[in-house]
Amino acid sequence: MSRPLPLLGQMMDRPLSIIALLQYAARCHATTEIVSRNCEGTIHRYGYGDAYARVQKLAHALVSLGVTPGDRVATLAWNNHRHFELYFAISGMGAVCHTINPRLAADQMAYILNHAEDKVLFVDPTFVPLVARLAGQLPRLQAVVVMTDRAHMPEAPAGFETLCYEELIEGQPQSYDWPELDERTASSLCYTSGTTGKPKGVMYSHRSTVLHAMAAGAAEGVGISGRECVLPVVPLFHVNAWGIPYACAMFGAKLVMPGPRLDGEGLHEMFEAEKVTITAGVPTVWLNLINYLRQSGKRLDMLKQLIIGGSAAPLAMIRTFEEEFGVPVAHAWGMTEMSPIGTVGTLKLADEGKPADERWLLKTSQGRMICMVDMKIVDPMGNRLPHDGKAFGELLVAGPWITSGYYENAEANAAAFDDDGWFRTGDVATIDPDGYMRIVDRAKDVIKSGGEWISSIDLENAVMGHPKVAEAAVIGVTHPKWDERPLLIVVPKPGETPTKDEILSWLSSRVAKLWLPDDMVLVDELPHSGTGKVLKAQLRQAFRDYALPTA
Amino acid sequence: MSRPLPLLGQMMDRPLSIIALLQYAARCHATTEIVSRNCEGTIHRYGYGDAYARVQKLAHALVSLGVTPGDRVATLAWNNHRHFELYFAISGMGAVCHTINPRLAADQMAYILNHAEDKVLFVDPTFVPLVARLAGQLPRLQAVVVMTDRAHMPEAPAGFETLCYEELIEGQPQSYDWPELDERTASSLCYTSGTTGKPKGVMYSHRSTVLHAMAAGAAEGVGISGRECVLPVVPLFHVNAWGIPYACAMFGAKLVMPGPRLDGEGLHEMFEAEKVTITAGVPTVWLNLINYLRQSGKRLDMLKQLIIGGSAAPLAMIRTFEEEFGVPVAHAWGMTEMSPIGTVGTLKLADEGKPADERWLLKTSQGRMICMVDMKIVDPMGNRLPHDGKAFGELLVAGPWITSGYYENAEANAAAFDDDGWFRTGDVATIDPDGYMRIVDRAKDVIKSGGEWISSIDLENAVMGHPKVAEAAVIGVTHPKWDERPLLIVVPKPGETPTKDEILSWLSSRVAKLWLPDDMVLVDELPHSGTGKVLKAQLRQAFRDYALPTA
Ligand SMILES: Nc1ncnc2c1ncn2[C@@H]1O[C@H](COP(=O)(O)OP(=O)(O)OP(=O)(O)O)[C@@H](O)[C@H]1O
Ligand SMILES: Nc1ncnc2c1ncn2[C@@H]1O[C@H](COP(=O)(O)OP(=O)(O)OP(=O)(O)O)[C@@H](O)[C@H]1O
Ligand SMILES: [Mg+2]
Ligand SMILES: [Mg+2]
Repeated sequence: MSRPLPLLGQMMDRPLSIIALLQYAARCHATTEIVSRNCEGTIHRYGYGDAYARVQKLAHALVSLGVTPGDRVATLAWNNHRHFELYFAISGMGAVCHTINPRLAADQMAYILNHAEDKVLFVDPTFVPLVARLAGQLPRLQAVVVMTDRAHMPEAPAGFETLCYEELIEGQPQSYDWPELDERTASSLCYTSGTTGKPKGVMYSHRSTVLHAMAAGAAEGVGISGRECVLPVVPLFHVNAWGIPYACAMFGAKLVMPGPRLDGEGLHEMFEAEKVTITAGVPTVWLNLINYLRQSGKRLDMLKQLIIGGSAAPLAMIRTFEEEFGVPVAHAWGMTEMSPIGTVGTLKLADEGKPADERWLLKTSQGRMICMVDMKIVDPMGNRLPHDGKAFGELLVAGPWITSGYYENAEANAAAFDDDGWFRTGDVATIDPDGYMRIVDRAKDVIKSGGEWISSIDLENAVMGHPKVAEAAVIGVTHPKWDERPLLIVVPKPGETPTKDEILSWLSSRVAKLWLPDDMVLVDELPHSGTGKVLKAQLRQAFRDYALPTA
Repeated sequence: MSRPLPLLGQMMDRPLSIIALLQYAARCHATTEIVSRNCEGTIHRYGYGDAYARVQKLAHALVSLGVTPGDRVATLAWNNHRHFELYFAISGMGAVCHTINPRLAADQMAYILNHAEDKVLFVDPTFVPLVARLAGQLPRLQAVVVMTDRAHMPEAPAGFETLCYEELIEGQPQSYDWPELDERTASSLCYTSGTTGKPKGVMYSHRSTVLHAMAAGAAEGVGISGRECVLPVVPLFHVNAWGIPYACAMFGAKLVMPGPRLDGEGLHEMFEAEKVTITAGVPTVWLNLINYLRQSGKRLDMLKQLIIGGSAAPLAMIRTFEEEFGVPVAHAWGMTEMSPIGTVGTLKLADEGKPADERWLLKTSQGRMICMVDMKIVDPMGNRLPHDGKAFGELLVAGPWITSGYYENAEANAAAFDDDGWFRTGDVATIDPDGYMRIVDRAKDVIKSGGEWISSIDLENAVMGHPKVAEAAVIGVTHPKWDERPLLIVVPKPGETPTKDEILSWLSSRVAKLWLPDDMVLVDELPHSGTGKVLKAQLRQAFRDYALPTA
């Protein structure tokens, strides 16, 4: 059946474009700074104007390396100015910027580079040894470029020839004739963290990236604007640093990048020196920062917003920042598949006047639904569950910056969408009538005990409030009567040896009796993924045959 | 030549949609209030949840009136909840919401209704008498609906039958099956103010409207969010109230609408009662508000942001709000053709530390360029002029929420675009290296004196700082030697009679000697357009034969 053409609006047909964000910044924020700590140990600073000049040269350099539109170009780098340049030059010329997590194991890294068929690899000097491990395994790769100048070039790893970034762009023409791209053109590629299985590739477009950057600039989102100074602790290889580099260019924010120094002291130094107002990162980096602040007596008074995401932020952490250091915290949830912003934990006007305990409760939720990210929770048959803050089920999402299919991965795609095309997050959640969403657990991590579901996240958050506990994980262990029962695995604070009784009695006033773990073990450390998440699958494997005292 | 298909991103293909904004608000801000003063004199309040329920009924009612996708449906109404409902129901069903300025002369109104071929007209009870004037002139119109309940229905104007809004939606089904629209579908129509000629129609799309709403929600834009309470003084018939209703739904802001009471007392009452944090309007309403505040000794302490746009905001007004009442002001510039946001006058991070006089100067600029609205200034041959803050020329713009052609107006379209498809604003401006844009004048209003251009706006702003002046306009009058020289037309404050000497000596320290007006006349009032702008063409006509003492 043919449909009559609708009456169209008469508005300019201008495609959303990544390079246009930087062109704007270069034009109107030429001297607004991008500051970064480099691998060479120095602080590099320049304005968006100079950054754009170098990006144009870099685009010519990419052409000289044989990169053409649609090619994948990989990066293996910290948050620094050259990495920022690559974001814009690669996507701007129509190629795909594929950021790789340097913390991946060698075999995972080889898998990803081959799966993406990356043509060129840009690598920070620090990570050249990682490349050495991949010798002979990357048949498609045509060039490796080390992101430094000649003076700092490390020796080429065995099996590779290397080019020098600064030499490559030196002498290239000053201006590049950017193609006008369809806004659905692929712009960048990022693989998931591999917490629950093999990393899967998500292919972003110019359209999704620009719309997502607008959400990051929304007062309702992260509030990035020309009046802010933003330091993404979250790496540029972790879902495009949550979109921050794009949003900073789009809104002309000062951008500060910490390079390799993500320790408390290194971060604090940059917060203070550059007067950072907005920052974002995962819970583990914030734990280190809190420890450093307490030890050193330092403050964070310039910060207006600190975003915690990537894993659940324990209440203790949120309160410490807000009450002890006066830093407003927003808990956020997202996924590689979602560019990543899904929810942001600012309170509504009507909630700001609520009693403190209610506010803290809302603050520990993963945040509120934002417009353009549709959410539903469903039961195992796919029926929608109410948004009453109590019913929980698998969370599905839909929206213009959400994946419509993993890159070249038919197997994963077969399971990833429901019949209406919504994406299955793999997270189990509640949503309340005001749109506050709370992750109960990953579907794979939830502990199924005699028909009841126990949230490992809730237990972990409660335990992490105990003064003797540094980190904690809870997994389900097979139980003859209950199917599964929780086992608590605790990393004590230095010098502390919490007992099982101590911890269970701490928990007993905080969670339902049926949720109390059947046993506790102390360990020196927990296994983490490249993005700092506890690898529960690995823990389950390690404790597979653990004999619970209750069994 | 056929181009190879680009590698596409794999992101969901979800069209930007106006009804989706309200669906979001209904879902996550069901109880966040929309408060309005109605024509009946009462305050109406409900949440986005109830608003959406009524919008669905209204869509059914539109269908019952024979409205189909692409049809134009006109409104003639104040800012109130029924007008808000019409915005979403009409656009949501695929029809075009055509807002009409009730302050237009009868012939202009008839011209616009016929030009748009409006099928149905929704009208506030207050404006029914205006409709009476159009009897026999609207052959296309099929129905007139009065926006009230049965009890308040006025008599039908001679020559029309009228329907009652509340009766029409009463008993309609509760849920409407919205069509999935291509995002370029026409959503709404607004005619320009008619300051310089016949009003011209601008046809917005769902895409342009949603992108523009995101810009209004940007911290860098107006900062509308779920933590704010927004009162648009700017009418819903003036470029969609600058996009505020859409942005409020999209970000879940409380929305307060003042209905017919735009006087200082009426506004202040609502600001205070509803704890408004953000407001926006044209200079004339703010003048009234300032007068009221001074007389009554009232304050505006809850306001976090006051936007002035539509005409140039004099420094005196900006300073009064900021210094006397502690309200942060942002000067903004836009056009019907631009949805309307073009620039917003917040200062950059780097400018906030500047000396007061430099900051005031920046604050009187029309604001900064924002991303997605490209701007250039050109000389009469169309050559680009530098962004140095000094060179001035006609301002041209391009971007996804800017018109690509007036609705059914080939004549206007022939002159409105340059060869690259940029839109000619008709304004003359400077742009500085940081993107601050300053309107020198409208091209038609600028005074051409012996090769030099004199800015009528600058002169007016300087004169309006004089304590005896209520309002002022400057026009060019023919001069035998200089081609044109400025004539100053002043409305004195009540009880004041400023002399020409007084005013010229006030001016002499503020503008170049060559700019000093050749004469001054006192008048009781200036002619204004429906949106409160001084009609310079009318003044030029009235003073066409004025004999300057210098001639
Ligand atoms: N604020 C948060 N609270 C709780 N969990 C979070 C939060 N933010 C993110 N997550 C978790 O992280 C997941 C998304 O992470 P990411 O895309 O980096 O890869 P991953 O899911 O860890 O790895 P993989 O999909 O390869 O197993 C979410 O599905 C959710 O489980
Ligand atoms: N902040 C401002 N300072 C100076 N002028 C402004 C400002 N905001 C808007 N304007 C003027 O208003 C114009 C846009 O107004 P609008 O679209 O309402 O119709 P109009 O231009 O007044 O009417 P018409 O185009 O029919 O003559 C701009 O081109 C500019 O001249
Ligand atoms: Mg995942
Ligand atoms: Mg105009």
